[in-house]
This record gives sequence, structure tokens and C-alpha cells, in this order.
Amino acid sequence: MKLKVGILGATGMVGQKFIELLSEHPWFKITSLAASERRIGKKYGEEVRWIVSQDVPKEVRDLELLPMDPKEFDADIVFSALPSDVAREVEKKFAEAGFVVASNASAYRMEEDVPLIIPEINADHLALIDVQKKNRGWDGFIVTNPNCTTIILTLTLKPLMDLGLREVNVATMQALSGAGYPGVASLDITDNIIPFIKGEEEKVESEPLKILGKLEGNKVRFADLKISASCHRVPVIDGHTEAVFARFDREVTVEEVREAFENFKPLDLPSSPEKLIIIREEADRPQPRLDRNAGRGMSVVVGRIRKDVSGIKYIVLGHNTVRGAAGASILNAELLVKEKII
Amino acid sequence: MKLKVGILGATGMVGQKFIELLSEHPWFKITSLAASERRIGKKYGEEVRWIVSQDVPKEVRDLELLPMDPKEFDADIVFSALPSDVAREVEKKFAEAGFVVASNASAYRMEEDVPLIIPEINADHLALIDVQKKNRGWDGFIVTNPNCTTIILTLTLKPLMDLGLREVNVATMQALSGAGYPGVASLDITDNIIPFIKGEEEKVESEPLKILGKLEGNKVRFADLKISASCHRVPVIDGHTEAVFARFDREVTVEEVREAFENFKPLDLPSSPEKLIIIREEADRPQPRLDRNAGRGMSVVVGRIRKDVSGIKYIVLGHNTVRGAAGASILNAELLVKEKII
Amino acid sequence: MKLKVGILGATGMVGQKFIELLSEHPWFKITSLAASERRIGKKYGEEVRWIVSQDVPKEVRDLELLPMDPKEFDADIVFSALPSDVAREVEKKFAEAGFVVASNASAYRMEEDVPLIIPEINADHLALIDVQKKNRGWDGFIVTNPNCTTIILTLTLKPLMDLGLREVNVATMQALSGAGYPGVASLDITDNIIPFIKGEEEKVESEPLKILGKLEGNKVRFADLKISASCHRVPVIDGHTEAVFARFDREVTVEEVREAFENFKPLDLPSSPEKLIIIREEADRPQPRLDRNAGRGMSVVVGRIRKDVSGIKYIVLGHNTVRGAAGASILNAELLVKEKII
Amino acid sequence: MKLKVGILGATGMVGQKFIELLSEHPWFKITSLAASERRIGKKYGEEVRWIVSQDVPKEVRDLELLPMDPKEFDADIVFSALPSDVAREVEKKFAEAGFVVASNASAYRMEEDVPLIIPEINADHLALIDVQKKNRGWDGFIVTNPNCTTIILTLTLKPLMDLGLREVNVATMQALSGAGYPGVASLDITDNIIPFIKGEEEKVESEPLKILGKLEGNKVRFADLKISASCHRVPVIDGHTEAVFARFDREVTVEEVREAFENFKPLDLPSSPEKLIIIREEADRPQPRLDRNAGRGMSVVVGRIRKDVSGIKYIVLGHNTVRGAAGASILNAELLVKEKII
Repeated sequence: MKLKVGILGATGMVGQKFIELLSEHPWFKITSLAASERRIGKKYGEEVRWIVSQDVPKEVRDLELLPMDPKEFDADIVFSALPSDVAREVEKKFAEAGFVVASNASAYRMEEDVPLIIPEINADHLALIDVQKKNRGWDGFIVTNPNCTTIILTLTLKPLMDLGLREVNVATMQALSGAGYPGVASLDITDNIIPFIKGEEEKVESEPLKILGKLEGNKVRFADLKISASCHRVPVIDGHTEAVFARFDREVTVEEVREAFENFKPLDLPSSPEKLIIIREEADRPQPRLDRNAGRGMSVVVGRIRKDVSGIKYIVLGHNTVRGAAGASILNAELLVKEKII
Repeated sequence: MKLKVGILGATGMVGQKFIELLSEHPWFKITSLAASERRIGKKYGEEVRWIVSQDVPKEVRDLELLPMDPKEFDADIVFSALPSDVAREVEKKFAEAGFVVASNASAYRMEEDVPLIIPEINADHLALIDVQKKNRGWDGFIVTNPNCTTIILTLTLKPLMDLGLREVNVATMQALSGAGYPGVASLDITDNIIPFIKGEEEKVESEPLKILGKLEGNKVRFADLKISASCHRVPVIDGHTEAVFARFDREVTVEEVREAFENFKPLDLPSSPEKLIIIREEADRPQPRLDRNAGRGMSVVVGRIRKDVSGIKYIVLGHNTVRGAAGASILNAELLVKEKII
Repeated sequence: MKLKVGILGATGMVGQKFIELLSEHPWFKITSLAASERRIGKKYGEEVRWIVSQDVPKEVRDLELLPMDPKEFDADIVFSALPSDVAREVEKKFAEAGFVVASNASAYRMEEDVPLIIPEINADHLALIDVQKKNRGWDGFIVTNPNCTTIILTLTLKPLMDLGLREVNVATMQALSGAGYPGVASLDITDNIIPFIKGEEEKVESEPLKILGKLEGNKVRFADLKISASCHRVPVIDGHTEAVFARFDREVTVEEVREAFENFKPLDLPSSPEKLIIIREEADRPQPRLDRNAGRGMSVVVGRIRKDVSGIKYIVLGHNTVRGAAGASILNAELLVKEKII
Repeated sequence: MKLKVGILGATGMVGQKFIELLSEHPWFKITSLAASERRIGKKYGEEVRWIVSQDVPKEVRDLELLPMDPKEFDADIVFSALPSDVAREVEKKFAEAGFVVASNASAYRMEEDVPLIIPEINADHLALIDVQKKNRGWDGFIVTNPNCTTIILTLTLKPLMDLGLREVNVATMQALSGAGYPGVASLDITDNIIPFIKGEEEKVESEPLKILGKLEGNKVRFADLKISASCHRVPVIDGHTEAVFARFDREVTVEEVREAFENFKPLDLPSSPEKLIIIREEADRPQPRLDRNAGRGMSVVVGRIRKDVSGIKYIVLGHNTVRGAAGASILNAELLVKEKII
């Protein structure tokens, strides 16, 4: 018996990715889809401008689009692909009404009593769920996953923490799909890059501190780490590439970093990749077009680990709408099921 | 009366840019063009695969391609757009034979007695010319300009030195034209980035130390600065974008940095731009397609100057084949003329 | 003394191109700019998302955006870069109020008493102006230029008419700028083409018949020519490329076609190119990036003229927002001045 | 028991696609790989610059590269991904030595006694094999598949023949992978199209006449059809798009064409797609990025079937290195097995 899941914001870029990933999921079955007001009552397959593959999956083609109203939803879990401002109101309504909300939106990520989860890193933060329900008097709850760039980066920072990681400079080259659809105008990005993504650097600089932080009583004590990010949009469809400069409390070797990455293991969940961090030995990898689908988009791929004047530098790449968005929320939901929280 | 100039490697990407810039130069007139052996004796206009504009400039269309032999050249200055391995032999022959060689190649850049010049920064290093001629017993001499990425970066580092600049992390997003022609395969870079450029990081990490160094007697004492670079190729035709993270000996404000950039003035040479460092105030600039031609490609454009956890970060962009290559060599030659060294 | 000109739809893609071309025009001076309602009263330089060059030209930066109201305009000529549905109402108001409206919009192009002009082809159709003013009781009048794809094509069809041109199949590869800004989403066009442009084929199949038609009394008798078009969007910033298959009443040679193209001469107006149809001899030209700026964007460039099983085929390329839009309207206005209609 | 297959030209673009498709083939097993001289004796996985997916398939990674010598090959079938000039000599040697050569090269396609096969269209032309063996005294034989653009086009022409197809104009927008690797330089195709592909139009205009021809005795009588092609390279990785203008002996309706397409059925071979011609109803399909993998790259996708002034026009798209190259050769080999010719 599969669990019933709904999607809020089902017609957008991330919404489509949720559908693509969930349409063949062993534990979950899509039953409810919501979109913006003007689409309500219409069939998903007729309303969506589907751009992530050849065809809208058959099982959702005829689903009628619902309003973002908990009473209309028949689901055990609700995935949210909403923009942050809408998410704030809507996710609250669903949590109040008793739904488990697995959200990719940024609205609640940094709230003290909301878990911001990367399952391989801080599954123990799920303890905040009880705090949240008590604090807010909700029947349900919200669990969030981080920003796409944060997830990809933080998966590599976690194993470095034990080596004394102290400070990170990261420059990103982010894919078009990260801006949603229609998103970036072709006239803005053809033969061009845009060295700015609104709100992105702030997220990348703060979210990892919470994820890598320690649960102490009812709170997360943020990790003692300094991050500075410079975020740029490049003409790549999927796959964020990040150039990381890491400094440590002590001298660290390339070999130690490589080992730390290799020893960082995936969980055993349906969406877990076989290998969490794939290290490429070629001089010119990872590359978005070749590596973004590694581990069906759920691995991150690292290359060019090398010493520099003050520490270690490397490149990390991940699929921004799979591991960095829809896949992240689904992995969170799988964790909740496994931990018997659902 | 214009000075006669020749170009070594005239059919390549940078060679074409030399021709484009020199074909309307007030001081210089192209008289000799050399290319690889199989092209010798043929007309430039028929041999070149011209890709930098609509048409090969009329004045060079019928020039016959010469061998790389000083005896065949009728020129006061020889510009070199040769690959490094070829440059080592050929530039030496020309310098021996009494030519002034203004080279864009990396072969001699880091030699102790060869000036590595950005005219606005270290014109005084031209004093090495006498040392070089004496050391090597050459009638002529070689003057070099830095690597494209180095020039663009170093033009912004120079004004920061007085603020106590101590360490730099820089991640670059470099244009296709930097790899020459045919250079990067379209199958490698469409919907992709390549996070590696052979030899580039080493150059960016070492050349600025020489340029920013102090001439002491017959030698340059390298600047006391640490640089770590991560270099990436992006699908942009012209214009290198660099994300710079700078650390200082002391607390530095955005305002100080901005002022330092604005106070850094161009020289008064034919190829000098009106403004050396253009600061854009928009959140999303500089962008290669919009800003690479600033100051006819001889300015660098800075944006997003902001404080971070350990210093200041900003974006700088410059035209890699103008300010970063052909234009750089030409500016060096103009300086030599102005300083009456030619 | 320059004539005063205004622009309707000044912030869009074509509006920006009007400003770029008019900001250094010898006869015209921009005095009035109108944009959509929410921008009224704001400064042009602050409201526009300028994407056609590095900077908004100084002379318009501080112009206050006006409503689309004839009473607010101080201008001798009004250029219209409006979308067709808005153009229908607004252009009428301006013509009624006595303005000369040189329109790039499609709204009035096919009306019987509205001249649809390519100055080098059918300047005599300006006689319709009197008919129009009389018919409609307007003080001013509307003169239109064709659709971008039509103009580029028809400039090559005109000289073929005397050779007995009977039928044309044309497949186009159209630039992104033709869709305006933001226009085509990067996610739709990266590593992709879109084989459809709404309404385009209909225009390309009908407008040339009027332009190439004969003025008979108060009417244009449409040319006896059959055109079938297939229109496609490609990832090119500027420059429409068109593959033309032409059939004639009789056997026609490549040499005759070449001669006909070469004998088709430009007018002597400020925006006229030196050469109207440039023929490239290279096997692989014309190419948008190399050839779109030929004649400052006002020439069309032809290549690969060759015989086929039923006639002649060739490639033609033109700058869609210069010769195909803003430049076309400006050329029309210059013609009106020269013909002393203004 | 799988048949043993070898690949000539295994490191190139089409060679890689052969390996990708064959590495999981139910009937075939890769046993021999040959590449150019300098690679002989080295491991495939170390020599290839693999660009078609994340990793070289495991089963070929350690295969040692062989010379193009029949004595070194242990295979029942040899697939050829050689350039035409090399193919002429090498394929002959293998056929002489008794191998079945399934070739994607153009060298032998138009020879009178060599079958040029699209299995769904002219499987009966395989009768030429006996003629070929007898004519040439070879123990083995060569079977060829058409040029990529030809295959995609001809799959749609076949069902139109019965409607009285008489003449075709076709303009193509061809993918980068069609030019091999490194192939098209990024500097040539970024923000650009190239309206020329050497030898392509000649192939597209002649090969379909043979494929659609009738076997009469020992010869193929070419189809009575006139084709004119204009071929263009566009910045798309995989997937050729073709705009077809078709004329008939009589009036033909859109409905008849649609029906003819739908009634054209695939064979029952391992690489056969479920549907041969997929008709998309959307106004803006087919698109290369969304549709090239239809039927695992073995279907062609048609859209925009519409009447025009002299017949019918439509768009057809296919995967140029699957249905148009490696997949075509493999389908031919499967046909040979099914027909018990192997």
C-alpha cells in the first residue's frame, strides 16, 4: 500500500520534477495536485507547460488541479514547491490541518523549531518536530530541505568538519532551472553570465550553519563556521557547479579530504544513491552535462581536490532540481517514513 | 610617420585581434605577418579563417604570409601571438636580431630579466630591458604582458595593495575565445561548463606577484601576497568574469575599496580607456555580453563590491582578447614608444 | 534643425533599438518616450531594463516616461514599437491627432489604405497616405513597415520579380530578439530550437504580396506570387537567417540571380547602407554573428545561390531589429522627409 | 548465445554511440574495437574522450584497441563508424575477409550492388547482397544505412509516396553531434548558425531516391521524385529538425498525410521503437531537446502538418546519432539476423 502524496505548486519547474520523480516511486502515489488560482479545476496535463521530458506522466495527466486548501487534499504527505511568499501562508494552513508538509520553499527553513534536513547529515534534527507541534499547536508539521546550492555544498562540508573546517569561500555557477520557468530570459543569458542571484548568497552563508549545527535540548546550536558565497547564473540547463576554497584549523592533506569524502555514506532509502559523493579523477570533471545525473541525480560529484595557499580547494556539482530540490524533499519524506514519524 | 609592426601567429584568434586593433592604429602600421609553415607565401585574406568580425580589414587582405624569420620581417616592433612552446624559440630569434618583441605568449613572462608589464601598474619594470639585453647579448628585447585572467584580476588588486591586501581567492568564468580557435569543441561546452583550464591557475597565482613586485636593483622582489585560483570555462564568446574574495591586514570598508578603484587612473596612450576601472552599481553587473567592450575593451568593469566574513568580495570582468591579450601587448608597445625606448 | 520624434513602447526590445539608432541620428532628435501605464512619470534610464548595449544613451536617460496620449507628446514623428493589439488603438489616436506615425506594429499593415513600405521597393505606395487621410478623416497618418522576416525576404524577392518569380518556399531560423524581452525563456531554447512562431508564417506569406504589388488608382493590386513559409526560433541573439527555394516562370541561372541582386541599389537616405544586398562568396556564409551588422544592420546578406531541381535556392540574412524593425521604421520616416511628405 | 560484434572507429562520436547502444543489446556482444593507429594496443577506457554519458560502459573499458585488420577481429558482425575515405579501403578488406559489415559510412552507399537500407522501407533490397558477393568475389558483404538527415526525412517520405509525392523542398537544422568530435568549434556556433554542411545536401537529394526505389532484377530503379535540400548547423547537441515542403501529383489533405504517417508501422526487432512516426499535436513541437529520445531515439517525431500554397508542409525530427547513425546500423544488423542472412 503506497502512501498518498500531494504537491503544492505542481505546474512549476520544481513541481514538474516532483511529478517526474514521484510517478514511479515505490512508496508514494500522487493523489492531489494544486496550482495557482486560474488553473483550478483544469486537468494537469492540459494546464502544465511540461518541459522536463517528452511527456507528462500518464498517471497525473488527468488529475484535476485543486485549490491550495487542505480540505480539498486527500494525501498523507504534501510536498511544497511553492515560492517562499506563498509558502508562508499555505504551508502553515496544511500543517495546522494535520498534514505532513515536506517543503522545498525557504519560508520556514530558518525558524528555530523547523527542521532543516539533509538526511545523511542531520536526521536527528527531526526531534524539532515535537517542539514545533507543541509551540504552534499544529496537528501536522513542516519539514524543510535547504536551498539547492546549500545542499550540494553542505554534503561536502559535513565530512570536512571533522578535519577542522573553519572557513569556506564558494563561487557558484548555477543552472537555469534553478530560476524556475520561464525564469531566466534567453536574451539575458545567451553568450553571457549573470553574476547575481537574488537572496542566494545569504542562504548559502546561513543554512549550512544550521544543518551542521548540534541539537541541544529544543534548539540547534549553529556550527562554528564562516562561509562567504558568490553566486552566478550560467547557460546550463541543470546542474550547479561550485568552486570551494576551504580553510581548516590545521594543515590538511588532499588524501585526508578524499578519504573523508569516500567515507561519507548514503542512507538506505528509496531515493538514496549508491554512492553519496562520487570523486572523479579526470582533470576536467565534474561537468554539469556529464555528471548531473550521477546516482539518478542524488549523488554529488567532486573533482579537482587540490591544496592551495591556505587550505584545500575542490569543485562540487549536483543536480539542482533533484538532489537540490524535489529529490531532497522526497528523501526527507522517505526518512520520515523510515523513522516511523509518518 | 607610423611605426612598422609585424605579427607572429597572425591567423589565430589573438592574431586576428591584433590585426583588428592595429588596422586603425594612430601610431602603428602592419607591414609583416607570419603564420605556420604551410601557409607561407599565401595571402592573409585567403588563408585566415576570420571570425572576429564581418571582414578581414582591407589593408592586410593581400599581405603575403611570411616565415617566422627575422630576415623576412620589415618592422620596428613585432607582436607575438604565438603558443608558448613556439614562442620560446621564435621570440628569441627576433630579439637577437634586434627586434622589439611585445609578446602575449607565456614563454618568457616569468624570466628574471624579462619585464612582465601592465603599463598602469609597473611601467618602471621596463628597466629590466637593459639587464636583459646585457645578460643575453641581444640587440633587441622581449617585453611581455600577463595572461588574460591575470591582467583583469591584477588591475583590481593593484589599488587594494595600499589597503593591506594579503590574500586572494578567485574563481573565474572564462570565455571561449581564451582557448583560441578552433579551441573548445561545441559538444564540450553546450549546456555545460568545464571546470579546468590547463596551466591557468598556476599563472594567475604567480604572475600578479611579479607585476605587483618592487624593482630592486636588477631584480623584481615579488609582492607578498597569497593567491588561490579556480578557473572554469563557460559558454561565453568574449569576456572573462572573476569572482574575487580579498582579505586584508586590517578591516577594510566597501567605501575604501570603491575609492581605491576610482582613484586608479589610466595612462594617456592611444589604447588607454577613458576610465580604467568602471564600477557598475546595478545588482547584476558586470555581465560579459554587456560590459566586455567597455573602454573599447580596455577598461575592466567591477560590480557587487561587498563585505564578507573575512574581507571584501567583488566581481571583475574584462575583455580577454583585448585588455587581456592583443590590446595588452599593444599598450605595452605604446608605452615603449612614449618612454622613448623605441 | 532636427525634427522631434517620439517613441511608443520605448522600454521594449524594439523600443530600445529605436533609441539606440535615433540617439545619433542626423535628422531626428528624441523628445518624447511613452511606455506602459505603471512606468509613467518615471525616468527612462531608471525604468528600462536596457539590454542592447552597455549603457542607456545619455540623451534619453532622464526623459520622463509619458502616457500614450497625443496631448502629452511634443514630436513631429511618432515611432511605434507597440504590440499589435495596443497599437490598433494608440496609433489611431495619434494619427487622428495629426501625428505622422511610423509604425513597426502589424495592426494596420494589411489595411487597404495604409502604406506598407520598404523604401527601396515601393516608395510609390506612399500615395495611399492621401487616401487614408481622406478615408478616415485623420489629420495625421500611419505608415507601416513589414514584419522582420518579411522585410529580409522581400528585399531579395524584388529583384527576382523581373526574372519571372512565381513561387517561394522559405524556412527561417529566427533570432531571440524577434520575440521581444523577456520573450523566449532560456529553458525553452538552450540546446533546442522551437519550430513555431505565432502568426509569423501568415505574415511572411501575405505581406510581400502587398509590398511587391502595383499601385492602381487608390489601391494596391497584390503581386501574383505564391509563398509558403516555415518559421523556427533558434538560439541566436540577433539576425534572422532564411533558406529560400524560388521557382520561376522560366529557366533562370545563378548568374542572372546574382546580377539581379547586385543591381538592386540602396536609396540615398541617412540610414541607407552602402550596399543593399551583399553577396558572400564563401561556402558557409551568411552567418548571423558575423553578418548581421553589415551596413550597420541595414544591408541584407546573401550566400549560397545555387540551382536546384526546380529553380534557384539561396540563403539570406538580415538584422531583425535593425533592418527588420526599428531601422525599417526610421528609413520610412527618412523617406517621408525626403519626399517632403513631412 | 549472443553474436560477437566489432566496431571500426570506436572512439569517435558515432563509435561511442554504437558502444552505448550495444553495451546492453539482447542479441549482440562487443568483442573487438578498432581505432586509429596511434591508439592501437591501448585500453578503450583510457583512450576515448567519452562524451555521450557519464561513464564508459564497464564491459568495454578494458578492451584493447585493435588495428583495422580483419585478422585481429573476432566478430560475426563489424559495425563501421569510419569517415568515408578510410571506410572505402577498410570496409572492403573486412568484407573480402568474410565479415558482415554494417556500415554507417557513405563510401559504398550509392554503389549499385550495395544495399542502402532502412529496414521499415526497403528490406527487400537486401537481395543485392548476393549480387554484391558475386560481383566482387567477396566472402562477406557490406550493408549500409543512409546519412542521418536522409533517414529522418525518408521515414516520412515513404508513407507519402502512395499519396502521389512528386517533389520535396527540405530545410534542415542539424545538431552538433552530426559533425563528430571535436567537430564544430564553439566559437563558430555560439550565438550563431552555419548555413552549410559539406556534402550533406547532395546526400539528402540522392539517397532517398535509391531507398524508395524498386528492386528490379539485380538493380534498384530509383524513385521518381525530386528533392532539393538546404542544410544548416544549429547550436543543438542531438536531434536534427527538418522543415519539409511536399508537393503531390494531386490535391492531398492534412488528414490523409496524418493517416499515412500513423499507418506506417515499425518492425519487430530489438531496436524497433513502439511507434515509428509519433505525431505531436502541440503547435510548437517537435523540439530537439524534448523529442529526440522518443522511442529510445528510434522514432521520428512529426508536427505541424499543414496545407500550403502547393501541397503539404510539416516538421520532422529524429535523433541523428541513434536513428540517424549507430541505431540505424544496428537495426540493419538485427534485420540481417532476423532474415537469417547472418
